[in-house]
This record gives sequence, structure tokens and C-alpha cells, in this order.
Amino acid sequence: MKKAQFARKVASDLAAVVRRLCEASRGLHPQRTCMEHREPMPSRAVLVEMVEDLRSVLFPGYFGLAELDAESMEFHVGATLDRVLRVLREQVKRGLCFACTEAQECELCDLQALETTYAFLGRLPEVARILATDVQAAYEGDPAATSPAEAIFCYPGVLAVMNYRLAHELHRLGIPLIPRIITEHAHSITGIDIHPGARIGESFFIDHGTGVVIGETCIIGNRVRIYQGVTLGAKSFPLDEEGRPVKGIPRHPIVEDDVIIYSGATILGRVTIGRGSVIGGNVWLTESVPPGTRVVQAPPPHRKRTPGED
Amino acid sequence: MKKAQFARKVASDLAAVVRRLCEASRGLHPQRTCMEHREPMPSRAVLVEMVEDLRSVLFPGYFGLAELDAESMEFHVGATLDRVLRVLREQVKRGLCFACTEAQECELCDLQALETTYAFLGRLPEVARILATDVQAAYEGDPAATSPAEAIFCYPGVLAVMNYRLAHELHRLGIPLIPRIITEHAHSITGIDIHPGARIGESFFIDHGTGVVIGETCIIGNRVRIYQGVTLGAKSFPLDEEGRPVKGIPRHPIVEDDVIIYSGATILGRVTIGRGSVIGGNVWLTESVPPGTRVVQAPPPHRKRTPGED
Amino acid sequence: MKKAQFARKVASDLAAVVRRLCEASRGLHPQRTCMEHREPMPSRAVLVEMVEDLRSVLFPGYFGLAELDAESMEFHVGATLDRVLRVLREQVKRGLCFACTEAQECELCDLQALETTYAFLGRLPEVARILATDVQAAYEGDPAATSPAEAIFCYPGVLAVMNYRLAHELHRLGIPLIPRIITEHAHSITGIDIHPGARIGESFFIDHGTGVVIGETCIIGNRVRIYQGVTLGAKSFPLDEEGRPVKGIPRHPIVEDDVIIYSGATILGRVTIGRGSVIGGNVWLTESVPPGTRVVQAPPPHRKRTPGED
Amino acid sequence: MKKAQFARKVASDLAAVVRRLCEASRGLHPQRTCMEHREPMPSRAVLVEMVEDLRSVLFPGYFGLAELDAESMEFHVGATLDRVLRVLREQVKRGLCFACTEAQECELCDLQALETTYAFLGRLPEVARILATDVQAAYEGDPAATSPAEAIFCYPGVLAVMNYRLAHELHRLGIPLIPRIITEHAHSITGIDIHPGARIGESFFIDHGTGVVIGETCIIGNRVRIYQGVTLGAKSFPLDEEGRPVKGIPRHPIVEDDVIIYSGATILGRVTIGRGSVIGGNVWLTESVPPGTRVVQAPPPHRKRTPGED
Amino acid sequence: MKKAQFARKVASDLAAVVRRLCEASRGLHPQRTCMEHREPMPSRAVLVEMVEDLRSVLFPGYFGLAELDAESMEFHVGATLDRVLRVLREQVKRGLCFACTEAQECELCDLQALETTYAFLGRLPEVARILATDVQAAYEGDPAATSPAEAIFCYPGVLAVMNYRLAHELHRLGIPLIPRIITEHAHSITGIDIHPGARIGESFFIDHGTGVVIGETCIIGNRVRIYQGVTLGAKSFPLDEEGRPVKGIPRHPIVEDDVIIYSGATILGRVTIGRGSVIGGNVWLTESVPPGTRVVQAPPPHRKRTPGED
Amino acid sequence: MKKAQFARKVASDLAAVVRRLCEASRGLHPQRTCMEHREPMPSRAVLVEMVEDLRSVLFPGYFGLAELDAESMEFHVGATLDRVLRVLREQVKRGLCFACTEAQECELCDLQALETTYAFLGRLPEVARILATDVQAAYEGDPAATSPAEAIFCYPGVLAVMNYRLAHELHRLGIPLIPRIITEHAHSITGIDIHPGARIGESFFIDHGTGVVIGETCIIGNRVRIYQGVTLGAKSFPLDEEGRPVKGIPRHPIVEDDVIIYSGATILGRVTIGRGSVIGGNVWLTESVPPGTRVVQAPPPHRKRTPGED
Repeated sequence: MKKAQFARKVASDLAAVVRRLCEASRGLHPQRTCMEHREPMPSRAVLVEMVEDLRSVLFPGYFGLAELDAESMEFHVGATLDRVLRVLREQVKRGLCFACTEAQECELCDLQALETTYAFLGRLPEVARILATDVQAAYEGDPAATSPAEAIFCYPGVLAVMNYRLAHELHRLGIPLIPRIITEHAHSITGIDIHPGARIGESFFIDHGTGVVIGETCIIGNRVRIYQGVTLGAKSFPLDEEGRPVKGIPRHPIVEDDVIIYSGATILGRVTIGRGSVIGGNVWLTESVPPGTRVVQAPPPHRKRTPGED
Repeated sequence: MKKAQFARKVASDLAAVVRRLCEASRGLHPQRTCMEHREPMPSRAVLVEMVEDLRSVLFPGYFGLAELDAESMEFHVGATLDRVLRVLREQVKRGLCFACTEAQECELCDLQALETTYAFLGRLPEVARILATDVQAAYEGDPAATSPAEAIFCYPGVLAVMNYRLAHELHRLGIPLIPRIITEHAHSITGIDIHPGARIGESFFIDHGTGVVIGETCIIGNRVRIYQGVTLGAKSFPLDEEGRPVKGIPRHPIVEDDVIIYSGATILGRVTIGRGSVIGGNVWLTESVPPGTRVVQAPPPHRKRTPGED
Repeated sequence: MKKAQFARKVASDLAAVVRRLCEASRGLHPQRTCMEHREPMPSRAVLVEMVEDLRSVLFPGYFGLAELDAESMEFHVGATLDRVLRVLREQVKRGLCFACTEAQECELCDLQALETTYAFLGRLPEVARILATDVQAAYEGDPAATSPAEAIFCYPGVLAVMNYRLAHELHRLGIPLIPRIITEHAHSITGIDIHPGARIGESFFIDHGTGVVIGETCIIGNRVRIYQGVTLGAKSFPLDEEGRPVKGIPRHPIVEDDVIIYSGATILGRVTIGRGSVIGGNVWLTESVPPGTRVVQAPPPHRKRTPGED
Repeated sequence: MKKAQFARKVASDLAAVVRRLCEASRGLHPQRTCMEHREPMPSRAVLVEMVEDLRSVLFPGYFGLAELDAESMEFHVGATLDRVLRVLREQVKRGLCFACTEAQECELCDLQALETTYAFLGRLPEVARILATDVQAAYEGDPAATSPAEAIFCYPGVLAVMNYRLAHELHRLGIPLIPRIITEHAHSITGIDIHPGARIGESFFIDHGTGVVIGETCIIGNRVRIYQGVTLGAKSFPLDEEGRPVKGIPRHPIVEDDVIIYSGATILGRVTIGRGSVIGGNVWLTESVPPGTRVVQAPPPHRKRTPGED
Repeated sequence: MKKAQFARKVASDLAAVVRRLCEASRGLHPQRTCMEHREPMPSRAVLVEMVEDLRSVLFPGYFGLAELDAESMEFHVGATLDRVLRVLREQVKRGLCFACTEAQECELCDLQALETTYAFLGRLPEVARILATDVQAAYEGDPAATSPAEAIFCYPGVLAVMNYRLAHELHRLGIPLIPRIITEHAHSITGIDIHPGARIGESFFIDHGTGVVIGETCIIGNRVRIYQGVTLGAKSFPLDEEGRPVKGIPRHPIVEDDVIIYSGATILGRVTIGRGSVIGGNVWLTESVPPGTRVVQAPPPHRKRTPGED
Repeated sequence: MKKAQFARKVASDLAAVVRRLCEASRGLHPQRTCMEHREPMPSRAVLVEMVEDLRSVLFPGYFGLAELDAESMEFHVGATLDRVLRVLREQVKRGLCFACTEAQECELCDLQALETTYAFLGRLPEVARILATDVQAAYEGDPAATSPAEAIFCYPGVLAVMNYRLAHELHRLGIPLIPRIITEHAHSITGIDIHPGARIGESFFIDHGTGVVIGETCIIGNRVRIYQGVTLGAKSFPLDEEGRPVKGIPRHPIVEDDVIIYSGATILGRVTIGRGSVIGGNVWLTESVPPGTRVVQAPPPHRKRTPGED
């Protein structure tokens, strides 16, 4: 019977394909000293859950258990944060082992992970304080917002900024890979792509947000407001002798305090948008502008549509 | 040993950080009368599941149980819808309690939640009817669509419009918070951000859709087609004496019947796009255009690229 | 009591609404011969899980089980791939039955599903090989990328291209519906919308990616780099006598080798972007350009902002 | 380092052990004709879930969804029963294929599975009717029972009898394996082991139940009450020429109407316990007793305990 | 085709069977006043999870999160206990509504549930104290026990006694149904059936335990040890005029301090086993014995086995 | 309002109760050196899952994935076994740390865990071989068994013996706690309680099994058959000077080859049941019997039952 023959062919080819795929995958794995010690890779799924937990710690009652009251809140926040710290230590350690290229002892990675966890814990109250300014900025910056609570619950900009602020703390502590996984998680949910290396001030609000890109070396001041589709990107980047981009050079915009950038605007390169400027929608900008500048796109031509035309 | 000392430091700092986070969170919670009755907050996860259930009620066989036949379909639709109504009543009640600032009795919130559930149930057949026109519009509006079924299964525009239409019914019934959570769920999946307050006619089709924003006071006619990256937004908004945006003023475009708006176009303010107009891609428009208008962007300059340049 | 009455009204209206919804849904289901045999519809959730499994087969250690070592890798890849093939066969069969309009025997759908599964299996090593070039292109194309591993783990462009490459293989084998579900899954996660029918060369890199649209009949060469918000779309499409778009006509751009297209650019119609060209951000392009062309948007006007203005 | 060496030894022995285990397992699999068609084995987990579903169909509100009201009950019962029937058909087919030793066509197994499903469906109302007599018997037979509802909710005897009655219907329809899996599930939960082949009348009550064994060829009348630890077993069984027990011979007790058997009693062989008899606790009985007999164990000797003795 | 016809028959009979099952189920539901208010029934699954949570509160580190340290333990215990109390209040309310036959207001049930929760919370430290004596008794009473920790982790007797002690507190507070569900859960796991109404002293140890039954009106002293298969049951019970057992009469044994009862012993009726007595295995006892008594079964006859006999 | 007051009382007492419970729990935790290193406790849930995995490795196709074919079996067995080994190593390490009372270095526990894992892996093929003899014994020993497959799928005796054989290997390797958790898991499912320290020969069959107890120092030969409720226990045990039972002394029966022990029989103490003996049901035996002995209980007295009597 034809079907049975086919089924057998599938089954018997399986082993050969598996072998080829495993061989191919070898090229994808870096030479890792720690690999000797068989340290597993970080887990995206675990990190995503950890960030969910952190959200319920930073906004208790809004996320996680919905039935908090004042008396029991500390128990829930404490239990969740304790779980977060254990997960963070483990994942940070994996991230460090993954990236370490020297013959470093695994024990050092573990110790560094523990130090990082400790430092991160100490930063959380400050992160919470700044996030409260972001929430207030969202409420004040959107006429459709009926309460700060609505911003916490529903605004993708608030979620993306929260993930960024958490990832940024880890980035500052020199942790590889993990911060990027955290911001990419927000990117996948919100369409807002903030590199954990960017530096962003208080009361930051991204409205709607889909398509926003904020590059690695951006510096953004206080009370900045950004709309969907805004790119703060690199204009171009120098290549090294092997034709690869040189890593880590300042190449993204500086946006000073109180700037508003409307939807679809693209600002590229190490330019400065002066304090209090307004950048109009769909604008393409590759030069600095002084404080208080207003940049707008020219109005498009329009004419009577020929019927049937589109 | 250094590691054990560190571990102990983490553990002993935990309590202090927890206390500071809990204090900080107090500012995030409004003065709620109902809080006295300890009504829990709405749950995003529960609402998301409820919308999944509604999808399988509106498109049985496509979502939820895949093995429906004609005879058993009513059982499955009925069982699912019954579950939806219980969840909806509970979540609407939480939403009402969350938003109520007066010393209203919780019982009233519960009664209003029940009334809302009843009214919502009665609107479902009409929602189903309109969604069928949207599906047909998707099939007819995209040469790549091979069947209406493909549109139901795969088109993010159909998903986003479905969530919007369900949320809009709750918005019309005066329910706070819940409608926004429902449309934001679609936003996170599709990148299409439709405010539940917008009013949108039949046979509405959004193709690709990522980055589309449709503001709170938009009015959109029948047979309108929109592509990815289109913004129907507010140009600016008046502030009250305290510098906060005045809420609820008509500030988004009116798009009349049979309009097509191509990708990346941005239309801002209370302008009217006249019936049958075509707005070209990437256009930036802040003024009304009469019926039958065609607006296109000027062609960009181009020249020979200098080798190495980008 | 008012509440009990209302609750009863809800319950008693339920049956009527259910009946109306079931009737309405009948129009959504095509006349399917296979329906006689009650073949269930494909399941989005099952396909999504299958693609997750495929990801752990193509990038073992990065996804799926994190603790792989060289000796046990083949077991895990083999076990997962075996599961994938069973699921694929079942879902492809459902997809075929769903789309088949003639009085074809279900057995034929099953046989074709088996053949497809066999052919797909045979293509996997080549898919793995090309994906490795994509990963390398991501690492080399982004100064912020610290290792190819980071690209695999975190880059939405890599994820979207992987889903596309898998879906494209199924599309080439003539499978309906399933490929589109697979690319739409990537679309929902990354905001990158690649039609499974597009043809894309090696070393393809999409950076950031939100809002990218690549249409059904696109042809893209090797070493092409694309940024967020780029549309490679159709300009317009001919309608048939009933006013419906004619399906399947080449209507999307051809992008030759070594082209870079910056964020927000829109290229529409069957135009050719010549080898080595650079298309600037936010550009709107509906005409072919010769090899080595550089297209940029004109700089916007700007002036001093009037205080209070936005 | 010693640990790394060991880890490598584990990994490298893995393949050899796997090979030996797979070879060993071959002896466990019968020569199945259907194996050619690769029909999978029945799944215990799926059958357990199916029985849970059946419980919520037979006792709606008590199991499954807790919030049923009269109006929506039919939807839930219908939806659940529909799911049960699909699962049953699939599992019965697998059971038939598993057991079929002749070169039967798989199609026949599928058809027989469908017929069985149909017959089983038709028997459900009668099963429900008898179970109601069992519940009433539990309530009336236990002074500690405060309501029939408590018996449904909490009494392991009711659970075990329900599983038995469902399994018995499948056993009567000639289905192999599946009935036994269903009664063993109850056995594992309750410690009550009723073979699906036994024939048991109405108003049957097993109190406490742990350790009860009711053999394959038992015949039990109406209104019988049994306590924990009672065995209705086989005394011995004839062996065939190869020394294997001859299957299927009547070898277990007949218990007539209105009999009570107290805890720990053991009744072995094809004996008859006459109507209305009472068998005392811990009795060992291998002979028939006429109707109305009372059998009790002799009182044990007792004496003063020597201190320290036990 | 035969199969399709059958499938259709199944589908079309479904509705009729559903209707008959729903009608049948009506007889199973008591006339409940609260039903008017549509209070749902208690949920076994939720209660089981609640008891699991309580276990991790009473034995932190042994159950629930395994990684507790001294500093974070209070957070985890507090968070879990807070969740337990919410669940308990809801389930107790459902239990009360289920059982209430008078036209009581639902609000009263809710208030009583809250009072019960409060009282239960206050009793927990005492329950924890007594359980510690039970654990110690297990360690000291079994030569195979290597540590008290092993008893907590592995001994079914400890689990059953824990469930009993929790259920007994609720029973004392007059809560219907819920306590029985809790002890039956332990019964299903351990085969040990302790009625929540029994009164049991400190340092109680049940070894192995399968088949143990301890009836509703038992009174058991301190330092009692019981082995598997022991029944402390009712001898017979008086019937009322309608032939139903009179509920609530003392009818089970009193076991005084320091008694040991070996496996399989059955003690029935309101008899007293005097302090320090030892009851041998498999003994059948229906009379009181004075303190310090030793009761053993007579040795069985034995003889040479005839070959082949069994 | 009374309810709100009560709710507040509950919440405010929570903290005090939590503190008392945490204090109480301190007494339950041994002085563990490893605790300094904060090694978590073993997890019952994880071990249960591990045993489920081992079952699918020892009986592939019967448990775990149901759709195995010959070609893919090695992949699935290998992948599952690899996961088992990782889990085993971690849990064994936790078990060792838990039990270690000296100031041993944690690293040693980890190394010992690795050695144990390696040794256990090497024993698996032999365990599989012996289990096959047990399965055959079940098929041959029960007239109701229709195939060895039925025994694998449904017989609690096979499950309990499998768990015992796995646990026994770990027990032999000197691992504390973990073996007992594994056999207790089988105990909770089957009611069969076999101590991991017992030594049991090939072709061992326990029929029905509920209530069977096999003590720590039992020695059981080949081809032994045991029925439900059989106890092979200790008669009494010597106490040390502090009144605690002396651990580890041989105190359970030796059962030689080819013995059958019928239901409810109790054999206590270090007695020997000679080869080929048959022990009848409910027998109480505390003395050795020579090979070929037959022991049966005396028949009970019986008389006409007085009507109404029970």
C-alpha cells in the first residue's frame, strides 16, 4: 500500500536528517569555556515569566494576584520578589557563562550573578519611583486616558518602558544577552523596540508606540513624548578592516528635555534635538536642531481623483 | 565564604525593598470607595481568555474546538457563551468598582454589570452580521486572499476589527477600562491600535495592519480600506488650566464611505476625508479633502549611489 | 428581586442568541466535500506549537530544552522532529481538506499530506543552511549585535525569516492555508509580515522589523538588508468582471542583490531595485531604479517653534 | 576535573543503554496487524479525562463547571458529551486495533468503534437512572451521610461504581482494554477494584471501600451493601496444558439481593450468598450459604497484656 | 457510506440523550433557597489545591516552593496563607449555601463563611503544634524511619492525619460538606479514611495505613498507634420510622491513650479499648476491653500442601 | 458594616499567625550543614514526573508518547532518558544534602549524585529485563488478563513493582529519602506499600494489591504471587535506651521461591515461608513454615439470620 510505504520512508529518512541538522547546529555554538562545565543556556520563557513577576511587584494589584489588600500586599510582593531573585541569579549566571570566552572559572560567573542580583534588588525602589513618573506622563499626555490606572493596565508604552528600565539596570551591571531578551519581549508585545543600552530620563511617554525604535546609544532627557513609528536610529556605521560594523560607537540621537516627536518621524545619527523642540510626523531628520525648533513635513500635493484610480 | 555572605545580604535586604515597593505602590491606587468592600481589580488574563472564547462563538469551527459538526455546534456555542457571560459580568463589575469615585454601593455596580451583560448578549448577533461583511471585504480587498476562510483564520485586520467591535459595544454601554483592555490585546497581537470609542461602518478592511492607529473620536464610513502604518490621530489638544489635556473633545478624522488610505499615511485632527477619496502612502495630511480627492506624495529625488555610501 | 430577574433574562435569552449565531456562522463555512467526512479544520494553536518545535530543531540549545550536550542532542532533535512530522501531516491534511472543492476522496488528501511531509523533511537541512547565513548577516549588519548567538536568541528579524522559510517550503509544495498561518504567527510576534509566496535569497537581514511588509510576488536577492516599516507592496491591482481583484499576478517589487532599504520606505508595484542600490528612509517609490542608485527623501523645512505650539 | 569526566561518561553511555532498552521493549509489543498502519495505542491520560467529563455529564453541577443553572445546563452537558463521544471513538478504535490479531482492515476497527460509540450513547440515560439508585442507597446506608449530594461529592464508593457502570457498558460491547483502564482508574483513586465484567444490580453501595475486590464473573443482585476490604474472588483456577490459567470460566461468587457483607470478609469461588444474608467482618468463606444466613467470626481470645509487650 | 451515516446518527441522537440526562439530573439537586441566587457548588479541585497550599504553610520547605530560606519564609507562608483564606471563605460559603434549606439570606452565608475563616485562621498555630507531635510519633514508631523529615515527606499517615486535623477544625465550626471533601481527598491518596467528626489526641501515628477506617463518632486518646487495614467502625445502627439510619448517634469505638492496634483489626460499636491495650492483627472485636488488655487471633491450622493445590 | 470589619480582622491577624507558623516550622528542619549553602529540598512533584518518564522509557509506546514506531523509538527513549538523568542527578544531590549531618562539602554531594546517576543508568537494562518477567507473571497469574499488554497498561501490581525496582536500585546506592518518595508515590496510586529496602526476585506478581505491605528487610524469592491486603511486616521491634526503635535490624519475613499468599494474610517477624508454600486468605502467621506447607483459616460459624439483624 502506497501510504504505508511513504510512512516508512519518512521514518527512515528521519535519522539522516537529524544527523545533518545536529552537525549544522555545531557552527551556531560559540567556543565556550563554560561549555565544558555544561552550563545550560538562558531560557527566554523563564525570563518572560520573571518579567511578569516583576511587573506584579512594581504594580501590585494591577498584575499578578488581583485581590490584594493593604495587609497582605507585603507577603505577595515579598514572595514574588524572592522568586524573581532566584530566577534572575540563575539566568544571569547562564548569560555570563554563555558570553565568557576566556578560561574563567564557572564559580566566578556564579559569584558575579549573585552580585548582580544584589545590586539589581537595591535599584528596584528607584525604578519604581521613575515608573510612577512615566505613568503620570502617560495620563497627562493622552486626552483619551481616563486615569493613571488605565495607563498602567492598558498602555503598551508603559509596558515597554518598564521592560526597558529593568533591562537597562542589568545592562549597566554589564550582563550580556539577558537585557536584550527582556526588551525584545516588550518589543514582541508592543512593537516598541528600545535597546537596553539607551539612557532615558523621567516622565517618558510613548503613545500607541507600534514601530518605535530607540537605538543603543540614544540619550533622552526628561518629559519627552514620542508617538508610534518614530525611529531614533543610526545613520550609518563605520566598518572595521574585515568589513564588519565597529561596535559600541555613539551613533544615535540625543533628545533633550521636553521634546515631542510625532508619529513616523525618523531621526538618524548622533544629532541633538534641542530642548523643547517639536518634530512633526513622518519627518526625516539627520541633522541637529537647536532648542525650541519646530520641524514639519511639507503638505502633499492633491488633486481630483480619476474614478477607478487608486 | 564570599558567596554565602552575598546570598545572606540579598535575603536580608529583601524585606526592606519589599516595604519600599509596597509604600510606593500606594500612590498608584486611586481612592476607591469600593476598595472598602475589597473588590478585586479586573484581570487582563481572564479578559483575554474571554475574548478567545467570543472568537470561537462568532467564528465557530475556526477557533476553539476544531471538530464541530452542524448537530453539536449549538451545544458548544451555548456552553462557551454561557461561560463568557459569567466572566463578563464579573469583570465588568470589577471595572465599574475600579472606576467609581462616589460612595456608590457595590450592589449597584453588580446590578449594572448584569444589565450590561444582558445588553451585550443582545448585540452579539448584529456584531456577527457586521463581522461577516468585514470578512468579505478582506477577501475582496486582497488579491492574495484565496478564500474568506483564509481571512478569518489568518488576517490580523479581521482579528483587530473583531476585538474592536466587541469592545465598542461595551464602550457604548459606558463600561470603563474593560473595552480598552480588549482592544489593547488586539493591538499587542496585530500592531493595530483602534480605540474602542471610534465609530466604524461595515465592510471595513485593514490589510497587514502593523502600526495602524485609529483614535477615540474617529468616525469611519462603510467600505473603507486601510493599510499598515496609517494614523488617524489628533493634531494637538487643548489643555485645561492645570495644563492637562481636556478629555473627550472630537479631535480625530472623519473618513467617509469608500475611502482607501495607503500605508504610512498620517491624517491628523478633526478633518473630513470625503467619500471615495484615495490617500497615498506616507502622506501627511492635516486638512479636509472633498469627496473624490486623490492625495499622493511627491516622488523623491534619486541619484547614482557613491560606492561605499549608504 | 431585580438582580435575580435579570439573571434569569440573561439565561433565557441565551438560547435564542446561540441559535442566531449558529445560523450566521453557516455562511462562513464553504461547501466542502470533505465536510461530509467531517474532517476538522486546521488548528492555529497546534501549528504554533509545531513551529516552536521546529525552532528547537533548527537552533538546538537556543530554544526548547536548554541543557543539551553534544551526546544527547540527536535524541532531542530526533524526538522533537518526529513529533513535528506527525503534527505536520495531520495539519496539512486538514488544510487540504479545507480547501478542496471537488469531490476528491479524503484518502487522497491524506496521501498528499504524507508526500508533503516527506518532501518537507528532505528540505530541512537546506533551510538550516540558509538560516545560518541569515544569522551571520544579522550579526554583521548590526553594530549592536554582540554575537551571532544574540541574533538567534533575540532578533525578531531572525524569527520572522525562519517562519517565512519554513512556510515558503510548504507554499512551494502547494499546501493552502497552513503556510499563511505560520507567517502570520511570526507577524503577530514581530510585526514583520512576509507572505509565504515571496522568494528571498540568502543572508537576508531585517533589523528591528516592526511594520515590514513583503508581498506575495516579491523576489529578493542575496545579502539584502531591510529596516523597520519598509513596505514592498502592490501599487494597485486589476479587478475582474465582478469587481474582485484578480489573484496571483506579479505585482510586487524585485529587489536585487546587496540592496539596503532604510526604515519606513515604501516601494510599490512590479518595479526593480537594481543591485547594490540604497533606498533612504520614508521614501515613497513606485518606479524602478538602476543598479547602484541612491534614493533619499528631501530634508524637511524647519523653523523656530512658537511657545505652546506642538 | 572528576565531575566533568563523570558527566561525559553518563552522556556517552546513554546511547548504549537506550539501544538496549529499545531492543528489550520489542518483546513487549504483540504482533499487531494494525501496527502496519501504525495505529497508536490507547492513552490512559485521555481516557481518565474522558471519564471526568462523563462524570460531569452524569452529575452536572457536581463535577465540571460548578456554576450551572437550569437554562444553560443542556449546552454544557451537550458540549461535554460531544467531546466525550469523539474521544471515545478514537480510543475504542485504538483499543480494537491493539487487540486485533487477524489481518483485519483498520477501517473495520474504525467502523466498530463508531458503532460502539453509538450504542454507548444510547445506554447513558439508563446508566444515569441506575446511578441515581446507587446514590440513594449510599445516603440511606450510611448514618454519617447528611444528604445524597454529599454521597455524590465525597463517597469513593459512588465514584468507583460509576466508573464500573460506564466500563461495564463498553465491556458488554466487546471492547478490549479500555474498560479495564477505566475501572483501574477508579481503583487507583478509591482502592475499590471492580472488574468491568462483573454484573451488578441497582442500589449498590460500597462504604469506605478501600481494598474491595469484585472479580470478573461476579453476579451481584439489587440493594447489596459492601464494606471496605471485602473480596469477592476466585478460589483457584484450572490451568491449561501449558500451565496457564484458563480464561473466562465462572469462578467468582453470586451475591443475591439484599445481602450485606461487612469489612474484611473474603468470599471465594463460584458460591452463592443467598438473598438477605449478612456476612460478618473478616470472615473467610468458600462455600454457599442459603438465603437469610448470618455468618460471623468467632470472638478472639484476650488476656491481660504484659507490660512492654506488643 | 456506512461510516458517514453512523456518524450522523450519533450526532442526531446526541440532543435527545442530553435532554434525558439533564432531566434526570434535576432529581439530584436539592431544593435550595440559595439556588435562587444561583450560588455555585463547592469545587473539589479548588479545595484540593487549597489543602496543598495549607500543607506548604504547615510544613514550609517540604511542600510548595523547595528553595525557602529563613529570611524569605514569612513572605511565602504569608502569601500562600492569604490565598488559602480567600479560597476557604468562598468555598465555605458555597458549602453553607448548598446545605441551607431554610429561606436564609445569602448574605448570612457569606458572613458565616467569613467568621469561619477567621476562626480557622486562629486555630492554625495549634494545628501546627499537634502535627509536630504526630510527626515525632511517626519517627519514633517506625524503625524504618530515618528522620522526622522522612515522615513529613513520605508518610501517608502524616498526610491523612494532617487533612483530618484541618477538616476537623472546619467540622467543629459547623461547616457542611467541605470537611468531608478534604478528608476524602486524603482517603483517595492514602487509603486512610478518617471522618472529620472523629476526635483524635496528640502524637497519633498510622503506619502504612491503607484500608484504615475511623468513624464519625470515634474518640481516640494520645499516643495511639494504628496499622494498615484497621477499622474503627459502627456495629449496626438504629433505623427511624422510614427505615433510614438515625444520624449522629455515638456508635464508634473509644480508644484510650497509648493503645496499639495492629493491621487488619476490626473494632465495631461504642466500645472502649482501655488505656495501654494492644489489639493484635486481623482481630474482630465488638466488646470493650479493660486497660492493659492484649487481644490476639488464634493461630491458624496448617498442614502439608498437596502438590498442585492452591 | 460587620462584614468589612471581619475582613479587616482576618487580614490583620494574618501576620501574627504567619509568624507563629514560621517559628513552629523551625523545629521541623534538621541542623543541616548544607543549609548554609542553601541547597533546596527534593521535590516530590519533580520525582513523580521523573518516574512517569522512566515508565515511558521502560515501556515505550505504553506510556508517554503513544505514536511510536520502530524507527523513531530510540529518539524518544533517548530524549526522555536524558531528561531523567538530569533530574535524577539534581534530586539525588538534594536528597544527599538533606541527609548529610557532617560538615561535608556540597561539592561532594554533587559528585556522589553524579556517580549515582551513572550507576543507575547502567542498571536500567537489567531492571527492564526483570520487569518483563514480572509482566509475564501477571499475565500468567491472572485468568482475567487477556494479554501481557493489558498487564502493563492496567495492573497496579506492575506499576508498584516497577516503582519499587527503580527505588531499590537507588536504595542500594545509598541514596536517602528519594527511594522512599518513589515507592510512596506508587503506594498512593495502588495501595501497595513496598519498602525500597526489600529484596524481591524475578517474576513477582501482586494481584489487585490494595493494602499490601512489604517491609524494609523482607527477602522474597522468584515466582512469588501475592494478593491484596497481604502484610509482610515486623512483629515487634526492640527499643534503644531512649525508648526509640532500633533501626535496620532484620525483622520482616523471608518468602522463598514459588510461594502464593492469598488476600488479607498477615505474616509478621523474621520468619521463613518455605519454598512452594501456600498461605490462605486472612491468615495470621508469626512462625516459620517448612517448604510445601499449606496454611488456611478455619471456616467461620454460621447460622440463620434473625430478620432485621445485621
